[in-house]
Amino acid sequence: MSLRDTIKKLVVKSKKASIQSAVLSTDKKNKILKAVAQELRKSAQKIQIENQKDLDYAKKAKLSSAMIDRLTLDPSRIEGMASSVEEVQKLEDPIAKILGQHKTDNGLKIRKVSVPLGVIVIIYESRPNVTSECASLCIKSGNAVVLRGGKEAFHSNKIITSIYRKVLKKFGVSEDVVSLVQTTDRAAVDFLIQMEGLVNLVIPRGGETLIQRVVQNSRVPVIKHYKGICHVYIDKDADLKQAEKIAVNAKVQRPGVCNACETLLVHKSVAKRFLPLIEKKLIEEGCEIRGDVNTKKILKNIKKASKEDWSTEYLDLILSIRTVDSIEEAIDHIQTFGSGHTEAIVTKNKKAEDKFVRRVDSSSVMVNASTRFADGNQYGLGAEIGISTDKIHARGPMGLEGLTSYKYVVFGKGQIRS
Amino acid sequence: MSLRDTIKKLVVKSKKASIQSAVLSTDKKNKILKAVAQELRKSAQKIQIENQKDLDYAKKAKLSSAMIDRLTLDPSRIEGMASSVEEVQKLEDPIAKILGQHKTDNGLKIRKVSVPLGVIVIIYESRPNVTSECASLCIKSGNAVVLRGGKEAFHSNKIITSIYRKVLKKFGVSEDVVSLVQTTDRAAVDFLIQMEGLVNLVIPRGGETLIQRVVQNSRVPVIKHYKGICHVYIDKDADLKQAEKIAVNAKVQRPGVCNACETLLVHKSVAKRFLPLIEKKLIEEGCEIRGDVNTKKILKNIKKASKEDWSTEYLDLILSIRTVDSIEEAIDHIQTFGSGHTEAIVTKNKKAEDKFVRRVDSSSVMVNASTRFADGNQYGLGAEIGISTDKIHARGPMGLEGLTSYKYVVFGKGQIRS
Repeated sequence: MSLRDTIKKLVVKSKKASIQSAVLSTDKKNKILKAVAQELRKSAQKIQIENQKDLDYAKKAKLSSAMIDRLTLDPSRIEGMASSVEEVQKLEDPIAKILGQHKTDNGLKIRKVSVPLGVIVIIYESRPNVTSECASLCIKSGNAVVLRGGKEAFHSNKIITSIYRKVLKKFGVSEDVVSLVQTTDRAAVDFLIQMEGLVNLVIPRGGETLIQRVVQNSRVPVIKHYKGICHVYIDKDADLKQAEKIAVNAKVQRPGVCNACETLLVHKSVAKRFLPLIEKKLIEEGCEIRGDVNTKKILKNIKKASKEDWSTEYLDLILSIRTVDSIEEAIDHIQTFGSGHTEAIVTKNKKAEDKFVRRVDSSSVMVNASTRFADGNQYGLGAEIGISTDKIHARGPMGLEGLTSYKYVVFGKGQIRS
Repeated sequence: MSLRDTIKKLVVKSKKASIQSAVLSTDKKNKILKAVAQELRKSAQKIQIENQKDLDYAKKAKLSSAMIDRLTLDPSRIEGMASSVEEVQKLEDPIAKILGQHKTDNGLKIRKVSVPLGVIVIIYESRPNVTSECASLCIKSGNAVVLRGGKEAFHSNKIITSIYRKVLKKFGVSEDVVSLVQTTDRAAVDFLIQMEGLVNLVIPRGGETLIQRVVQNSRVPVIKHYKGICHVYIDKDADLKQAEKIAVNAKVQRPGVCNACETLLVHKSVAKRFLPLIEKKLIEEGCEIRGDVNTKKILKNIKKASKEDWSTEYLDLILSIRTVDSIEEAIDHIQTFGSGHTEAIVTKNKKAEDKFVRRVDSSSVMVNASTRFADGNQYGLGAEIGISTDKIHARGPMGLEGLTSYKYVVFGKGQIRS
């Protein structure tokens, strides 16, 4: 069988399974997830043995120590994986919710009801706990999921999905509700994202190159974010103590993630006081600073920022700083170089706050708080299947609700249209 | 300038205008729409003169009389257009609505707020009132719109959009909130739908070939429905009097629209009584019937339905009928041949109703009511920008809400993440 046919066969099975998972009761879904959590704990040793195969490969392939760390499943991470499944189990069922209802003059009862999307394809890299997170969210939301992990995590992903499949089968549910693409051939991705009419949504999670490739070739809707070039703007009416804390936290607390700050924008009227303060703190934290001409006039020892700096997601202890003449210039800068992920303003001025909140067109806008708060848990979504900087369907941190659609159900008593 | 550059220039202007329209107050948007309605009325004669140019072309090009009818703008249609704008003006502003709000343990206030999508491209054919409908909906929802009508309606579309632009300008708003593609070159469409990052959503309205072409080539999210192959299923526990009324209405009341019924599914245990009844009525209405083997055993004089009939949207006075052994077979048939638009069940049996409602995966499911009720006005949306059989973003009749996205706004007092 050609690779394309193999993938198609797998997706057709998922589609069929999704018809079954769409109508599972909340109780049954919860029982399945509880059993999965138990089974993950019971299988901890087996999971570690399989994970070791991936780690051996990773060492041979000389993957970076950061990647090897992300790949590693030790007993505490396996426990974490199991308790995450229980967290998802406890979330409210997003399916069959009445989203709206009204009666028309001619007596029709019109109801808008939430339904699953169908088949979700997730394309991701390295962290094998993503496998379990996505599988549990897709079960809870009545979907079927096709998982395509990186080849470096193949054995780990295989054992985790086989645990899900075993439990599904035990409960009389098609095991194809959770499938793993069993080949590491990269072409498999291209076939998956061409399965229009069978796959309902593709979520690529990973580096920008991977996501670009998926977006370029997909015939199915894709939800994604390319990168997070997040800004903190220090307004002329900022509390500078607060500004310092927020800017430092946004940059250094976890620089390798998408909601970390990459560029600081400082109003010129506070630049002279603020910049030396923040420079000191950042240097203490081991952070490199690159500034525009006006910033360099105040901070003599920093590097000059090139034009490229403004559109670079460092994911590292580097911060670019630009001094701006006005809030409008800050907003313009964000419109030009931002990625639509998360921006923050620090100000005590209500007018400046309003302007920033209304005009900045990003999925999250923070007022006097760190950009690092942009995540599903903080937003009360419980768990994240991904983050979207698109405007269609789901935006920002995307949880169970993002995995649903709706339909209209109309109850009549024989009404016809005249 | 190349056509691609011309289109890009136009879209860049729209993008810029969309930044302005996103923050217009409700009051200002309403004043603009009221003024547009007035201006349309005042310009009725001018509109007719321009429309006549299109009609002259249509006659020369020997367009069908149905198309010429759709193209015609007489005084009553112009009045209808103006009052539709007033209807949109009266709808609730969908922007800056608080969709959800909560406070976290650390005192952050997290708010989900509705925002416009940005730039909407609409690609459509013949009816020039669509121009005004789409422009008014996009203004009300704080978007900018790029309209690409058919060349047969070029002069009519041009005068209608110029009225919108004149009014926008009078209110100090960029006239580029409403733009019309001024070339009739078909390649313009291909360039428009490649403007990733500038255009936020494409809505093609028209024949399946047009929509397929847009979907195949778009680099921007597309919302659409290809066709409406709607089914009415007559259950074994149907009230046959009601069933007859609903089936006839769904087929003949307006056969040329997407929510008209194309296939009737009849449970075998009522087929002998029901089929002769419905045959009589349909023949009275001038409707042709095509049936499967079992239906033909009862209705001897009808044509045999070929396999193609089950997946054909007749948009005409033709109905295919299949006799099924069970409700499951009816649902299977719908899953196999349906287009996900609208299906109806006629039954007095609550269990059958529940099964049909949960399992039929269409954007609208009717219980004891005609499929013809699937539309935005009936559903309380006020006006429709299109109908979606997709599951992403918007499903079914799509109104103002479908033209919005949301963002998260987080209000803090200096909180940082630990």
